[in-house]
Amino acid sequence: MLSKSRGLDEWNIDELLSYGDIEAKKKALLLAEEALKASNPYNSVYDRIRVVGDTIVIDSYSFPIRGGIYVVAIGKAACSMAKAVEDKLGDKIVDGVAITKYGYRIPLKYIRVVEAGHPIPDENSLKGTEEALRIAKKVRENDILFFLISGGGSALFVYPENDLSLNDIITVNELLLKSGAKIHEINVVRKHLSRVKGGKFAKLVRGTLISLILSDVVGDKIESIASGPTSKDPSTFSDAFRVLVNYGLLDKIPQRVRSFIERGMKGKVEETLKEDLPNVYNIIVGSVKLACEAVAKKAAQLGLKPYILTTTLEGEAKDAAIAFGSIIEEIKRYNRPFSTPCAIIAGGETTVTIYGEPGLGGPNQEFALSIARKIKDLDNVAVLALDTDGTDGPTDAAGGLVDSKTYYRLIDAGIDIEDVLNRHDSYNALKKCNALLITGPTYTNVNSIYIAVIL
Amino acid sequence: MLSKSRGLDEWNIDELLSYGDIEAKKKALLLAEEALKASNPYNSVYDRIRVVGDTIVIDSYSFPIRGGIYVVAIGKAACSMAKAVEDKLGDKIVDGVAITKYGYRIPLKYIRVVEAGHPIPDENSLKGTEEALRIAKKVRENDILFFLISGGGSALFVYPENDLSLNDIITVNELLLKSGAKIHEINVVRKHLSRVKGGKFAKLVRGTLISLILSDVVGDKIESIASGPTSKDPSTFSDAFRVLVNYGLLDKIPQRVRSFIERGMKGKVEETLKEDLPNVYNIIVGSVKLACEAVAKKAAQLGLKPYILTTTLEGEAKDAAIAFGSIIEEIKRYNRPFSTPCAIIAGGETTVTIYGEPGLGGPNQEFALSIARKIKDLDNVAVLALDTDGTDGPTDAAGGLVDSKTYYRLIDAGIDIEDVLNRHDSYNALKKCNALLITGPTYTNVNSIYIAVIL
Repeated sequence: MLSKSRGLDEWNIDELLSYGDIEAKKKALLLAEEALKASNPYNSVYDRIRVVGDTIVIDSYSFPIRGGIYVVAIGKAACSMAKAVEDKLGDKIVDGVAITKYGYRIPLKYIRVVEAGHPIPDENSLKGTEEALRIAKKVRENDILFFLISGGGSALFVYPENDLSLNDIITVNELLLKSGAKIHEINVVRKHLSRVKGGKFAKLVRGTLISLILSDVVGDKIESIASGPTSKDPSTFSDAFRVLVNYGLLDKIPQRVRSFIERGMKGKVEETLKEDLPNVYNIIVGSVKLACEAVAKKAAQLGLKPYILTTTLEGEAKDAAIAFGSIIEEIKRYNRPFSTPCAIIAGGETTVTIYGEPGLGGPNQEFALSIARKIKDLDNVAVLALDTDGTDGPTDAAGGLVDSKTYYRLIDAGIDIEDVLNRHDSYNALKKCNALLITGPTYTNVNSIYIAVIL
Repeated sequence: MLSKSRGLDEWNIDELLSYGDIEAKKKALLLAEEALKASNPYNSVYDRIRVVGDTIVIDSYSFPIRGGIYVVAIGKAACSMAKAVEDKLGDKIVDGVAITKYGYRIPLKYIRVVEAGHPIPDENSLKGTEEALRIAKKVRENDILFFLISGGGSALFVYPENDLSLNDIITVNELLLKSGAKIHEINVVRKHLSRVKGGKFAKLVRGTLISLILSDVVGDKIESIASGPTSKDPSTFSDAFRVLVNYGLLDKIPQRVRSFIERGMKGKVEETLKEDLPNVYNIIVGSVKLACEAVAKKAAQLGLKPYILTTTLEGEAKDAAIAFGSIIEEIKRYNRPFSTPCAIIAGGETTVTIYGEPGLGGPNQEFALSIARKIKDLDNVAVLALDTDGTDGPTDAAGGLVDSKTYYRLIDAGIDIEDVLNRHDSYNALKKCNALLITGPTYTNVNSIYIAVIL
């Protein structure tokens, strides 16, 4: 896995710029490129750390180097993030481990790489996490431990509480996923069965713990990212019990798990971390919010007034697109709430609800297709929808790029947009009119970004 | 039917203000009241017409009174709008007819009222329209004809083209409605079978024709409002034919209708109006856009920076709400793209897609319920969703009013919001936590308005 972000010259820009509002689309592509640059795991860490003499400076924090530097990295971008720390701090690193998904290894000099199962944890997840626990115990008061978190970290960083087995964890996880429980409810249970999640890893570290986080969770709640190994956690054993009751799982989970949780409710087992620890710093180095801000900065350089509409967009992709499009319509028609030329930027994660057998596509492609209807007839408008991981749904496209002409190209190609949206076949429709955005692998994931350029 | 709008004192404000972000909710209610005032059919007409000596002034237009004044009013608000013209111009009115829905009559002095079938036209629709045609023919070059359009006008203003019968019109209409054809496609056929739609009424008038329009169509395209009796129309007989082919109706419609359209395609029948006529003025006097602008003005008076986000909001109600809510979140958390205290205003028409047997509710209630999830924990925020006709879905509520506390009241009441949204039972959920907005009849319809007050 490479750590560099791929630039525009590796995207399918010739296709995308073959018709329509070329100027607006060019700018949208430059902004999307900027979003990926800003979300690159390597850059996010490397650019954030400054070494000034014997002091590490991150934002307004200063950390004098008085002892050794240790590194634990988890997630799909673990190696890139760890490499950035190596490139900054080199032989000051005493020990480290990066736990990543199979196939995501890149060579590191001071930090061992453990590849493990994702999304289902395996024995290697355990081995890697054991390494991390061993390192955590080695860290003394004067030492600094960098903890690097990226998407996928929850499955890769796994260590069952005393008395429980990896199989117990996997069994409970599968039951919860099938039960219809919501992701935050599943996490409540996960955290209470784990020795490292819910801030419990942080409790083990005596030195300075600097957690650098690449967020793939809308809203950037750090307790939700990779189940928050270094964050305090508001949930309790009773909450975990309630989730299992509500989804009828109490009699289905292994007996050991049930009695463990019941002991926890009686206060006989350690709870998750309940307060901020003075030696722990949680710093978000990459997120869709930061990507939006980088895009806004770049937009200003391109002569566009930048407006970040939201960094927490959610909901059904095609309807979020209609709402977004209706704002563009207002801008173009009545010069409000923003005036042109401008860039309207939104970050978040939209979804697609499927009934029946779907076609080929993804939420960002549906967003693009849907908004093509709203921006038709508005000249010099382009809208780009991008999944920052480069893969939107099960396709080779990262999203779509449409303009005020795309609608008519679709109609001319005999495409019934509503029908395509109902069949969730956005990929083929966008492909037919050169509106698919293909970036190739981006080596990051901070969710999706939506950019409108209105000239 | 009364012509006055009901003020706040007739709404259920005690319930709504019984908890939570009272100050924000009070302001939201005052703004909603303003929206209804601005959309009131009587006010919209009365306030727009100025009589200066012997001249009628509307906006930047001046119309010297050189002959008689005639009035034709169609739609559910026909009587209120006609009354406003009577109250302005009194005995200058020579002749007039108001065609409205059964039960919507109010007494008029100079203008006859014809009540007729809605949504399905009947013999009275024909009779009323005949009256209108008779009046149109009486209007001479120096006369002025006021044509007053409001929602429902399409069904109430009906006159079949030569050779066709009312039953032909009703049959084709029913076939189209069942076929899955889109509303603009249905209108293409309707216009070509009618002697008054698609601008054909305007062609008959020799004098000055002033069309005052209360728009219930998102985007205010005048050719779409009541099928545009006084507006030019871009569609053709061939377009009408194509719609019937596409939905497999060519062999199902009466033979007379088919041969009429085929004659039209050969140029043997008059087409709809294709150019603007110099004696015709189409003026929108009420619309969700004008309502949004009135709300913005009032918001400024209340010390809130007003931002009209869009006047063409569409899409699934619960997802439009999430998008709207994500912008509120951005404002509250990061003071962008707008700063507080502010009012965010949107107009349009959201929809609810139903699978299976629905509960009780409507799009504005679902909007309110859905956005309660997004604004929880943001203090001093209220969001109001209002169907301006006072009836949201088949309920006695006009919409909902929620704040940052409503989510927790719903949870405390044991309500699973997602489940309620899936069952489309928003009415009962909102009712339980005093978040239903009940205005009673408003005597207008300019679609829906969404107001967020963020302090």
